[in-house]
Amino acid sequence: MATGAADGYGRMAGKPACTLLHLGPGYGNGVANLHNARRAFTPIVNVVGDHATYHRQYDAPLNSDIATLVKPNSIWAKSADSADSVAGLAAEAVAASYGPPGGPVSLVLPADSAWLPTTTEPVIAQKPTRPAPAGSAVDAAARALKAAKKPVVLLGGQACLADGLKAAARLEAAGVTVYSDTFVPRQPRGAGVFLPKKMPYFGEMALGELEGVDLMVFVGTTLPVAFFAYPDRPSVLVPDGCETLTLAERSEDSIAGLVALADALGAPAEGPVQTLAIADAAPDGQLNAYHCGTSIARHMPEGAIVCDDAVTSGTGVGFATATARAHEVLALTGGAIGIGLPIAVGAAVACPDRKVLSLNGDGAAMYTVQALWTMVRENLDITVVVFANHTYRILNVEMTRTGAGKAGPQASKLLDLGDPKIDWVSVAKGFGLPAVRCETAEAFDAAFAAAMAQKGPTFIEAAI
Amino acid sequence: MATGAADGYGRMAGKPACTLLHLGPGYGNGVANLHNARRAFTPIVNVVGDHATYHRQYDAPLNSDIATLVKPNSIWAKSADSADSVAGLAAEAVAASYGPPGGPVSLVLPADSAWLPTTTEPVIAQKPTRPAPAGSAVDAAARALKAAKKPVVLLGGQACLADGLKAAARLEAAGVTVYSDTFVPRQPRGAGVFLPKKMPYFGEMALGELEGVDLMVFVGTTLPVAFFAYPDRPSVLVPDGCETLTLAERSEDSIAGLVALADALGAPAEGPVQTLAIADAAPDGQLNAYHCGTSIARHMPEGAIVCDDAVTSGTGVGFATATARAHEVLALTGGAIGIGLPIAVGAAVACPDRKVLSLNGDGAAMYTVQALWTMVRENLDITVVVFANHTYRILNVEMTRTGAGKAGPQASKLLDLGDPKIDWVSVAKGFGLPAVRCETAEAFDAAFAAAMAQKGPTFIEAAI
Repeated sequence: MATGAADGYGRMAGKPACTLLHLGPGYGNGVANLHNARRAFTPIVNVVGDHATYHRQYDAPLNSDIATLVKPNSIWAKSADSADSVAGLAAEAVAASYGPPGGPVSLVLPADSAWLPTTTEPVIAQKPTRPAPAGSAVDAAARALKAAKKPVVLLGGQACLADGLKAAARLEAAGVTVYSDTFVPRQPRGAGVFLPKKMPYFGEMALGELEGVDLMVFVGTTLPVAFFAYPDRPSVLVPDGCETLTLAERSEDSIAGLVALADALGAPAEGPVQTLAIADAAPDGQLNAYHCGTSIARHMPEGAIVCDDAVTSGTGVGFATATARAHEVLALTGGAIGIGLPIAVGAAVACPDRKVLSLNGDGAAMYTVQALWTMVRENLDITVVVFANHTYRILNVEMTRTGAGKAGPQASKLLDLGDPKIDWVSVAKGFGLPAVRCETAEAFDAAFAAAMAQKGPTFIEAAI
Repeated sequence: MATGAADGYGRMAGKPACTLLHLGPGYGNGVANLHNARRAFTPIVNVVGDHATYHRQYDAPLNSDIATLVKPNSIWAKSADSADSVAGLAAEAVAASYGPPGGPVSLVLPADSAWLPTTTEPVIAQKPTRPAPAGSAVDAAARALKAAKKPVVLLGGQACLADGLKAAARLEAAGVTVYSDTFVPRQPRGAGVFLPKKMPYFGEMALGELEGVDLMVFVGTTLPVAFFAYPDRPSVLVPDGCETLTLAERSEDSIAGLVALADALGAPAEGPVQTLAIADAAPDGQLNAYHCGTSIARHMPEGAIVCDDAVTSGTGVGFATATARAHEVLALTGGAIGIGLPIAVGAAVACPDRKVLSLNGDGAAMYTVQALWTMVRENLDITVVVFANHTYRILNVEMTRTGAGKAGPQASKLLDLGDPKIDWVSVAKGFGLPAVRCETAEAFDAAFAAAMAQKGPTFIEAAI
């Protein structure tokens, strides 16, 4: 929970949140969401409390190999083994978490370093800057784009922030098709914002869309690849014979690169943006993710932060909100479901004056359901929606794609969440949230409108 | 959840459970309970699904350094990088999980190894045997015990299983004081069973009890150490000048060692056991952990399996159940709270004909609260008790012991779970369990008696 919240805070605040984790097991509980944070390049400083330095040798019950455990998801990791080393290493940790391109760092803090006196002065961390891409990279991209028949620019990470999208829209206006990665850490969307195409989740769909593309230019991202491999399906999502080129590495200033490229191409000063278009009337009939999206688009206020862990229901919502009031979306960058509730906690702490939406599949929401309690405790302005289809629908889809044939009863049961059906309203109320179940599109529209009209945490079970 | 359940299964079945974990993040979600399992020396085979071998190089979103992540909590780890290697490595994994003394192993299974055809035959895993301690170790222990003025034998792990306790009781009958580790993976208790003294949790209490002890003999365990270090308190729980000796390493057959030692000392054929003593009448008045223990002892059937993650409330229960009907206790071996619900799941799957009790602090129960749903789904015969004091009481205790002074409002709030108070009955009902809240000792006695009289999962919130 804490690490997912730190990711939400870091993405929205642009500076690291600090977590306090209890030795190896406490860090372990945060691994899945730190995986997502690493993939989002979010600055996070994890302080991992450890045994007193002299006590480590005795291998007490909570002892474990923290240095190894933190490695896969830390871009920097050190242990402060004396009280006097804490200030300097803490500043180093904060600076390191910025990267560029940033990510989680681990500062191990033995108990005696915390309780012994220190004689050192405070140390202020310096935030490193991102270098702009070399002029030669800009020139090369401009030349290649001019020469290509069907070029595409692919944005990721920093390139999808507001100023990146503004510059990318100029490229679109100059005749270059602009795509974004499938999963983007933070992306403005809706009215007044340029909406690049999104790389489809399924590899063969992506290659279908990219047919005939002869140049891909990467900005703040790298070679697009399939989320999973499947028998006889592609791993790399670049068409045969298509040239690839990098304008800006993830560690470079993608926004400066995009502006320079648009200038080099003589692109118009402004590019296309979405026009506000929301449904006048509430949808009616049986509830589904598209209806929910329509209602969310109708009522979501400007500046809302949408935390998307809705998995198979996310598409329906994203479709309708493309022309909603301007908002920002935080996506599941690392594929480790269960971030939708905690990341909303962190986003709400970072931006107390903005409405936060937490959209979750019911399978995903179970991973860190404890976050519901935190929302109440901190009185955060979060509206939680759980799309309750009572199944791990995405796993049903993925299993079909492996070609393993129709799932037998044992395999099917592993993907089923319907026996018993979770009473989400009862669970949410147990954690202290006002909660309502909606079984029709009209009911959801009314409940969501009511949630937007008030402040504080609230919960909607969308029975789809 | 899955790894905690695997621990419960492995401890009760004496053979490994197999988990299926989804790449690095899925493994990460299981780290805390694998830490406990490693400390319990429980055989577990974790199958960690990974990307297809040829897809790993592209670093897709779910990719991470699994080999490094699994290291701290795996006593064996390999990747089956071809379909033909799966059978042999799986058998190797099962055998490795037995140790001795056993523990979790990790078998990484790339997607293509799972979906490609194989030409190999099935391989049957061989279970390794534990060697008996050398005769010289038995002789040395016997000589030292005879020579010592105030000797103690300390049991852990396998030595605390039924046959180990029987042999250890003979030592007690021969005048040797027998202790067990503070946290034992699996220990029979109650009427007809020998109950060794338990090493106290707090170091200074342990050393107080051991004052004057001049010999400690370790059987299936090692040097006792404090759970945490604190300023000016001891790390090693052996009195100054006390000799230490190992009869049986954790990897050796402790039971054979204890029998041989008892024979060498000419100990009686049988030692002391607990006499059945349970309260005739239900306790009354305000509910507390001691009252709960009295009622649990009154109604718990013979053969019950008690999963103890009750932290500060555990002592009250353990006091009363010491003379209850014969049962077994599974303790929190690694200090990573949150095992009480999942380990009960695994114990109930391993022993479907025995009543399983899951005793939890409310802080601890929140870690893996999802396990409640699994109990219903699998219709397991588990009675869950959550001791709801709405605080992390153990952390209040530990903080005082660091000498940091009285906690300020911010620090206090970090240890508080009472704002809002979790409505455990609502949460449990949401997951499908029949649930009741008890605010008096009489109500708890009646609810617990009713739970023992039925089969299937049920939930009691003990409002202490």
